[in-house]
Amino acid sequence: MELRDLGEFELIARIERVASHAGPAVSLGIGDDAALLRLRAGEELVVTTDAFVEGVHFRWRNEAPGRVGRRAVAACLSDLAAMGARPLGCTLGLALPGSLPLRRFDALVRGLAAEAARHQAPLVGGNLTRARETSLSLTGLGAVKRGRALLRRGSRPGDRLCVTGVLGAAALDRARAERSRAGRVRHAPEPRLVAGRRLGAIRSVVACIDISDGLLADLRHLLGPSLHATLDPGELPLPRGFRAACRRLGLDPEALALTGGGDYELLFTVRGNRPSVAQLARRLGLPIRELGRVERGAPEALGRRSGAGGWRHF
Amino acid sequence: MELRDLGEFELIARIERVASHAGPAVSLGIGDDAALLRLRAGEELVVTTDAFVEGVHFRWRNEAPGRVGRRAVAACLSDLAAMGARPLGCTLGLALPGSLPLRRFDALVRGLAAEAARHQAPLVGGNLTRARETSLSLTGLGAVKRGRALLRRGSRPGDRLCVTGVLGAAALDRARAERSRAGRVRHAPEPRLVAGRRLGAIRSVVACIDISDGLLADLRHLLGPSLHATLDPGELPLPRGFRAACRRLGLDPEALALTGGGDYELLFTVRGNRPSVAQLARRLGLPIRELGRVERGAPEALGRRSGAGGWRHF
Repeated sequence: MELRDLGEFELIARIERVASHAGPAVSLGIGDDAALLRLRAGEELVVTTDAFVEGVHFRWRNEAPGRVGRRAVAACLSDLAAMGARPLGCTLGLALPGSLPLRRFDALVRGLAAEAARHQAPLVGGNLTRARETSLSLTGLGAVKRGRALLRRGSRPGDRLCVTGVLGAAALDRARAERSRAGRVRHAPEPRLVAGRRLGAIRSVVACIDISDGLLADLRHLLGPSLHATLDPGELPLPRGFRAACRRLGLDPEALALTGGGDYELLFTVRGNRPSVAQLARRLGLPIRELGRVERGAPEALGRRSGAGGWRHF
Repeated sequence: MELRDLGEFELIARIERVASHAGPAVSLGIGDDAALLRLRAGEELVVTTDAFVEGVHFRWRNEAPGRVGRRAVAACLSDLAAMGARPLGCTLGLALPGSLPLRRFDALVRGLAAEAARHQAPLVGGNLTRARETSLSLTGLGAVKRGRALLRRGSRPGDRLCVTGVLGAAALDRARAERSRAGRVRHAPEPRLVAGRRLGAIRSVVACIDISDGLLADLRHLLGPSLHATLDPGELPLPRGFRAACRRLGLDPEALALTGGGDYELLFTVRGNRPSVAQLARRLGLPIRELGRVERGAPEALGRRSGAGGWRHF
């Protein structure tokens, strides 16, 4: 059975049946002109919109539909994590071709709804429309104490640059799936929502971004045009067995970890020596790696000066 | 010049240049992982997501790109109006083919941004992605006093059914544009934001919906399966010159006004006789028409019973 065999309202009803649209912040979920959400006194709203498009962000042939839904929600909620927000809910704009098999739709929606519910970000509304290709537009809504959101800006020379978890797993998984005919995308990133909220409560944490485009690209967004950091590729936090797996595929492990993207770890700066890396790891409940210190100067100029030694400047 | 000739960041910069992302509620606009918005004490958040897809909701060949942008924003904000919300801001998920002319992109974005700014719903964030066809996913954010949002539910037999403005103009405009080779969509609906907020402040107003799908379809959403209203097609509020224009195109004016959709007027119910229609019109600053009373009973059963007389039962 294909989507064209069902009406819009039947499809929306199928979403409603699997979506948890109840949550502590939800006054009114799916079904009216809009949803209603409650913030606590002294909080401000955090809002982010992310797209997930067939042929750009995913391919049906190498990924289970439920995982596509799960990854789309995780990517959106990761932006809330990077602001130090607690999730309130999310809305979904879903565009689908009439020829899409109903089983694929159901699995996609179940994956979406389960990931949203797992992070207390229930699906509270959205929109369904026909289109030539499948695309998901997710809006994540969260709340943070007024004036306490973790922004990208604010880092200064001397700040310590740190990252949660490990880097490269998502890129390696994509490379694997693309090289083999029967290869499947298996990696699903974990939005660091709990870690983000805990980081937001640490006064010496200055700035934060989630790594969606790759460590190097997002480091540029974090530090801007007049700061840089000197990274030692040998010190990158890599997954267990990563170097060997890259070698088998003929890939450069450091390049993959630096530029691959899709891991959704948090990259942040800390002013002064407290908390230590060990203390950070305990408070966040995650491995933390200190990658270096923020330095003065434009990244390009330094990159040229330093040449192509074992270190890369950005 | 086409979009593929520019990078994602240059295109985002072009949006930032025309978007007003300042507003009374905006703590942080475009440029970080997420935007920050402030609600007032005692308010709750109103959120709605709407899609606008090439070939479904608009066609480049018969509509100016700026008008496409304007209509997309208006449709989204209309849902906030129907809840009685004051707008806080909006986010935009924009998917575009690389072959789109840059001039069309610029005009689309200017139309979007101008309409958003005009309603104090500044564009505070979003996402840009490549796709095979153009689609816009808009999320409207608003605020309403806790517990005072205008919902769809709650109407009872005896309630008066009223509508703002006139019906049929958007459908007539679409029919005109589609029948002529060089026809253009010219109508741009006005989201009834001020009227919606004023309705929300009137205690005797029970329930409200915006008419996006047509009066009949949205009346069904408002009254649900166990209530109906008896409408007199001769009493529909039609635009000036509408009957004659319909006759010239061979269209049934009442059918168009009942089912056409796209006018984004507010359809609402009022308990008791106060305020009168004249008082409502003064308070809302708009023409108001009383269409009838809410009655008990399923609409289908009555429709069959009443046959095909001059009256239609829904």
